[in-house]
Amino acid sequence: MTAVHEALAELSLVDHHCHGVVTEDLDRDGFEALLTEGGRWPGSGISPFDTPVGVSVRRHCAPLLDLDRHAPPEEYLARRTELGAREVNRRFLAAAGTGTYCLDTGFGPTELAADDVHEVVRLESVEEALVAKGVEPDDYAEAFRAAALQAVSRPRVVAVKSVAAYRTGFDLNPARPSAAEVERAARDRLAASGRLTDPVLVRHLLWTAVDLGLPLQLHTGFGDNDIRLHKVDPTHLTDWLHLTAGTIPVLLLHCWPYQRQAGYLAAVFEQVYLDVGLTLHHVGPARARAILEEALEITPFRKLLYSSDAYGLAEFYALGALSFRRGLGELLQDRVDTDELSPPDAHRLAEWAGAHNARRVYRLSGPS
Amino acid sequence: MTAVHEALAELSLVDHHCHGVVTEDLDRDGFEALLTEGGRWPGSGISPFDTPVGVSVRRHCAPLLDLDRHAPPEEYLARRTELGAREVNRRFLAAAGTGTYCLDTGFGPTELAADDVHEVVRLESVEEALVAKGVEPDDYAEAFRAAALQAVSRPRVVAVKSVAAYRTGFDLNPARPSAAEVERAARDRLAASGRLTDPVLVRHLLWTAVDLGLPLQLHTGFGDNDIRLHKVDPTHLTDWLHLTAGTIPVLLLHCWPYQRQAGYLAAVFEQVYLDVGLTLHHVGPARARAILEEALEITPFRKLLYSSDAYGLAEFYALGALSFRRGLGELLQDRVDTDELSPPDAHRLAEWAGAHNARRVYRLSGPS
Amino acid sequence: MTAVHEALAELSLVDHHCHGVVTEDLDRDGFEALLTEGGRWPGSGISPFDTPVGVSVRRHCAPLLDLDRHAPPEEYLARRTELGAREVNRRFLAAAGTGTYCLDTGFGPTELAADDVHEVVRLESVEEALVAKGVEPDDYAEAFRAAALQAVSRPRVVAVKSVAAYRTGFDLNPARPSAAEVERAARDRLAASGRLTDPVLVRHLLWTAVDLGLPLQLHTGFGDNDIRLHKVDPTHLTDWLHLTAGTIPVLLLHCWPYQRQAGYLAAVFEQVYLDVGLTLHHVGPARARAILEEALEITPFRKLLYSSDAYGLAEFYALGALSFRRGLGELLQDRVDTDELSPPDAHRLAEWAGAHNARRVYRLSGPS
Repeated sequence: MTAVHEALAELSLVDHHCHGVVTEDLDRDGFEALLTEGGRWPGSGISPFDTPVGVSVRRHCAPLLDLDRHAPPEEYLARRTELGAREVNRRFLAAAGTGTYCLDTGFGPTELAADDVHEVVRLESVEEALVAKGVEPDDYAEAFRAAALQAVSRPRVVAVKSVAAYRTGFDLNPARPSAAEVERAARDRLAASGRLTDPVLVRHLLWTAVDLGLPLQLHTGFGDNDIRLHKVDPTHLTDWLHLTAGTIPVLLLHCWPYQRQAGYLAAVFEQVYLDVGLTLHHVGPARARAILEEALEITPFRKLLYSSDAYGLAEFYALGALSFRRGLGELLQDRVDTDELSPPDAHRLAEWAGAHNARRVYRLSGPS
Repeated sequence: MTAVHEALAELSLVDHHCHGVVTEDLDRDGFEALLTEGGRWPGSGISPFDTPVGVSVRRHCAPLLDLDRHAPPEEYLARRTELGAREVNRRFLAAAGTGTYCLDTGFGPTELAADDVHEVVRLESVEEALVAKGVEPDDYAEAFRAAALQAVSRPRVVAVKSVAAYRTGFDLNPARPSAAEVERAARDRLAASGRLTDPVLVRHLLWTAVDLGLPLQLHTGFGDNDIRLHKVDPTHLTDWLHLTAGTIPVLLLHCWPYQRQAGYLAAVFEQVYLDVGLTLHHVGPARARAILEEALEITPFRKLLYSSDAYGLAEFYALGALSFRRGLGELLQDRVDTDELSPPDAHRLAEWAGAHNARRVYRLSGPS
Repeated sequence: MTAVHEALAELSLVDHHCHGVVTEDLDRDGFEALLTEGGRWPGSGISPFDTPVGVSVRRHCAPLLDLDRHAPPEEYLARRTELGAREVNRRFLAAAGTGTYCLDTGFGPTELAADDVHEVVRLESVEEALVAKGVEPDDYAEAFRAAALQAVSRPRVVAVKSVAAYRTGFDLNPARPSAAEVERAARDRLAASGRLTDPVLVRHLLWTAVDLGLPLQLHTGFGDNDIRLHKVDPTHLTDWLHLTAGTIPVLLLHCWPYQRQAGYLAAVFEQVYLDVGLTLHHVGPARARAILEEALEITPFRKLLYSSDAYGLAEFYALGALSFRRGLGELLQDRVDTDELSPPDAHRLAEWAGAHNARRVYRLSGPS
């Protein structure tokens, strides 16, 4: 039997949550701004390259641009410009070895030159487009439902997503708000416009997701500084998960540093799944295994999915996939080597996490 | 001097917190329901065997039933049936190598065919039995105290236990409630019956434990989906621990994923102890060492105890003990090998955690 | 190129946060009381030597007193007495290999026989001295500002510090309190005297730090039992960090068990830095690498600093430095060995964390 890390290296991944790639050429500022969740800090003397993800890009992505491993940032960026965005993106997407993508089209670039691309509808974007267009408070609930239904009726839509984590965090009343409460909250919201941040309407959005019947992706844990990290521990969702049990699958995205908490929810709620996307390329291959070890401590093997959560830079598709394959491969191979796991079980688990589990949850074609 | 993991492999353990074993034969549904904290999910296609604890059972328990390592679930269950519950239980309890058990008799099966069995009284069960029997609100406090005193006067009782974690979590007013508050809360409670969930009465229960003067076991962290995990971080008990300092020993059970937080409390409060029971068999030998490493980061060596928190399946007595011996043995042996710990210190620490600390806290006979 | 752990072993460290050393001879009670964050527990039979830090002292400090590794406590204390505090302190400070210290002079001993010592002003001590001296409520704000300005005008002051973590935790209204609110709170405070614990005045203190313009060190995470650990997760500071962005550097001290959360803040806020001081000698060399691995998961390499947070015992300067050098050295060497990091990058990162980052933040002389 092939070693499990070799099998994983060749597996065609399903990336169940990612964003589009920037198709223009990027200058240093543009590249660095996308390299970090912290934004650039001009004048600070602190380069986004001097981070775990920065050294991982220089180590693992430079060779894919024909450079030496650990090439300096200047050389890296010059070569990137020389090749052009189109060729750079082609190379990294090919290196990722991902066969199927589920693309969040609600925020940032939405292009991805790949064969098998599905769509994830970001509900906050649907809501905000509706509000921008104009709606009466007493029509808000019905109009939002209609807009969401229309959005998910597009041919390749397989899931919806919410960034409630960014807007309110999860310390919400879990109950479905009444029609009167929604109308009252809509009245205030429509007087102001802008981003959806009202807790009643965020709850309404999450319950609308339940009505839509599609799997719901939820940002949890790690993100940019718009997050209040202590409010996005997914265990705050426990009461809501009780109320929505038996309805839709709920996919906890990113999760770090709450991967153990996410694993707990996946172990005790039938409908809960998780990934450690975004985290994997930010920590890089040096720590991917450690994160996955924690994510899998008690998680049922049918519950872990792969995502890159790549955004903007094509490097992240390649780096996310590499970190996942290496991290999971080392974890599984080590358990096989110490006879804690049989080789067939290890292979099965690798295929489940890398592809089958996502195909199952989203009802995609192919083995699941 | 023997290697420390060999010494640990032969040490007769004190399991300071466990439940009874099911004495009837179990069919697949019954076995799977006990295998997971998540319950069975019929129709989901997700088997409780496809979890870390599931593969650990197939790996480590199958050979004790004369099967190959990693035997398939069907084969495992068939052989279990063939041998019969009595023989299966005998084998796993023998394999556990546990000499002394402290048995929580307040929930689930209470049978355990072992020589040295002590009893832990679950105070919520005492309270709920009293309420079921009937009591007047103004007599509630006194009647509960009397019932608790009676319960702990049984010959083998060594401790009490509370599942306040399940009922309210630990974000409680730490002060002892007044008699008037208790009576008022009792009035509402007695109108309804059912489980004890009123925060005033839960506080009253915890303070009644203080009055009883016996060591108090507290469920913290990991459990089934009745837990709100973010509310059972044991550091929420800090103010209560200040108020009760100098009274009774408090034993934090399970703790995951808050084993570091529990270790902090054990380091700064004289009366606090911890274990990582339940966790150890759920994560299995592959991760037991990692959990113990965190649990011991700053914990005084007199403060870590062993428990299986086994419930229902005899497998868990064996698997909990194996995970503990392996995990602690590898941790200690590695520190001896890198000369961070002297061999005599490592042996002493192993005996303390595996048996002596529990004998000291509960005043059991034998070396402590 | 030298191996990175060898380079780290020879690097002259900048210890950006520590306390003074006790200059008198210590008896067993006095030594043990300083060895633990938990205080002594006389009559418990639990020795502070039976802890991770206790075995580390016996292992790593005993040879510096010409004893065998793992010398028993009695022998260790006898030899310490024989040599005398002056010689003991000299040896451990020399072994630390720290070239520059930033000393918190606001609490505990303040002596440190070293060449390059800078001062950190603890603002709570400034405030409490003012209150002890006497001040009118309507003059409180101005008098505190004047006292703080005077304190930081001392020649070697490079930073201020707050122990808000101990007084209120971080779940504070992030806004600057109004003059009227401060006066009202001061009125109540001045009626009582004692420690500063009023939330309005703690906020006022933090905003006064912003006005002072110096880097602010904040205790977060691990400490003695006066901490409510769940209230000192530094991510509770997120709103305050948004409001104070672009003003002063904020240095998160200790952080454990929230080192990942601290790393997140350092990754997304330009002004945030962190260390894992105090933690490193309490967990000892056996776990220092594991803590640093988590602390560096996503942290920009310009953001990690070294501190011992040594207090009282000269052993802690040596042990903190050793844990840091070993832990970071192993982490970096392993990444070089697996080709995740180039040797020059690893050396640069080691120098940054061990010395340059602190010199930069505090504008000390020498390479930065």
